[in-house]
Amino acid sequence: MDTERIDNLGINDLKIIQDSNFFCFGTDSVLLANFVNSSSFKNIIVDLCTGTGIIPVILSAKCKYRKIFAVELQTEMFNLLDANIKLNKLNNCIVSINDDIKNVDKIREIIAENVQHQTVDIVVCNPPYKKIGSGSINENQVKYIARHEVKCTLDDIFKTSSNLLRSHGKLYLVHKPERLCDIICIGRKYKMELKRLQFVYPTINKDPSIILMECVKDGGNELKVLKPLIEYDSNGKYSKQMNEIYSKKGDDTK
Amino acid sequence: MDTERIDNLGINDLKIIQDSNFFCFGTDSVLLANFVNSSSFKNIIVDLCTGTGIIPVILSAKCKYRKIFAVELQTEMFNLLDANIKLNKLNNCIVSINDDIKNVDKIREIIAENVQHQTVDIVVCNPPYKKIGSGSINENQVKYIARHEVKCTLDDIFKTSSNLLRSHGKLYLVHKPERLCDIICIGRKYKMELKRLQFVYPTINKDPSIILMECVKDGGNELKVLKPLIEYDSNGKYSKQMNEIYSKKGDDTK
Repeated sequence: MDTERIDNLGINDLKIIQDSNFFCFGTDSVLLANFVNSSSFKNIIVDLCTGTGIIPVILSAKCKYRKIFAVELQTEMFNLLDANIKLNKLNNCIVSINDDIKNVDKIREIIAENVQHQTVDIVVCNPPYKKIGSGSINENQVKYIARHEVKCTLDDIFKTSSNLLRSHGKLYLVHKPERLCDIICIGRKYKMELKRLQFVYPTINKDPSIILMECVKDGGNELKVLKPLIEYDSNGKYSKQMNEIYSKKGDDTK
Repeated sequence: MDTERIDNLGINDLKIIQDSNFFCFGTDSVLLANFVNSSSFKNIIVDLCTGTGIIPVILSAKCKYRKIFAVELQTEMFNLLDANIKLNKLNNCIVSINDDIKNVDKIREIIAENVQHQTVDIVVCNPPYKKIGSGSINENQVKYIARHEVKCTLDDIFKTSSNLLRSHGKLYLVHKPERLCDIICIGRKYKMELKRLQFVYPTINKDPSIILMECVKDGGNELKVLKPLIEYDSNGKYSKQMNEIYSKKGDDTK
């Protein structure tokens, strides 16, 4: 297919097959993968709305997780996910699941088959950001579903995460700042308390473009807000922080 | 009294009498007063937990508000508030109220006596930040009450604000980042939606020290997060942003 391409991630020769007809990963996925607490040694991870698998592929490079379950509903994306697992020889690390994130029983069943218990330590999710009805409606169906809350709302994410996680297990989420209040209130409804929050500002003079969040199941209600993450310096180049994040990914694999 | 002093605010010859035995205002009050939307022309304002009146005094310098009601429970602070109103010749602008912020009926009554109706456009509050039981217990009673949620909890602030404000009226609040989730959830409970949020970072490399918030009664659930406010530059001097805030106060009075 003309629109299909292979991108080199620059980490341990990892590669990602993508299709610009569908949905290509962005900086937000890389930042979210970096935000996942690296002390989470030998954990069981579930990545919801995994798309072509960018987050599991980056996390697998850290070589520390017992198993990563990657859940994707759309067949077109799921096929690319499977291709990416094969391409990167990660069949032992990543288990792909072609299902709706609301189908918790099915996800639990597949987890139990693989790791002999049903709860997980970490859920990661880079979800569709836009509410239904907002944004362009000229996109194709696959892109539209990847970007809009058609099949996956914030409520769905918190409900499923709360169901899957053990007590004090963590949900790592990236989203738009304008949804922060909804995220905090819906999270609390499912006993998923926001505990760590970082704002990503494109430059020091601009409003934040995305937020990185760590919610803890049954967590206490005291939030830690981190120093700002500034993407570009005054010369329009990647900041020191961003360069560190991109280089750190590789360091973890040594 | 030896501990009493008069500070010049550097705005239109405004002065503040304070007593270091009690509680002296900080940058947070100045930033909060600056954060109050300056398009709020001829509005009725209530400042809860006003202390010695720093916020009403700064706001009065803008010379645009119809009337500012300053509510303070503690007699020691209230006496200084009255002294500050007199010292700055602001008797026509500021009405002092010596009562508990929970006594909404009494506050409404005094407002009605002065402006012939009972709802207000803007509530401002720099509340006690600390939960009961946290922090030093060696403080005197006046300081302890000014700093801890003994007589004024977040719930009290939102309940009273929601009662006093007209629909789409605004509450301006400053607080610590760790309480953000509580603020958002308690606010929503009283139909006071957080709509505008700014993080104040001491330097670009530090976690934020305070947050500035605008909540709107009956507001929709989409949040606007503003660019970071950085207090000090890399040389340890006030940033351009801070210098602008301090000089802007004066400009508004011209």
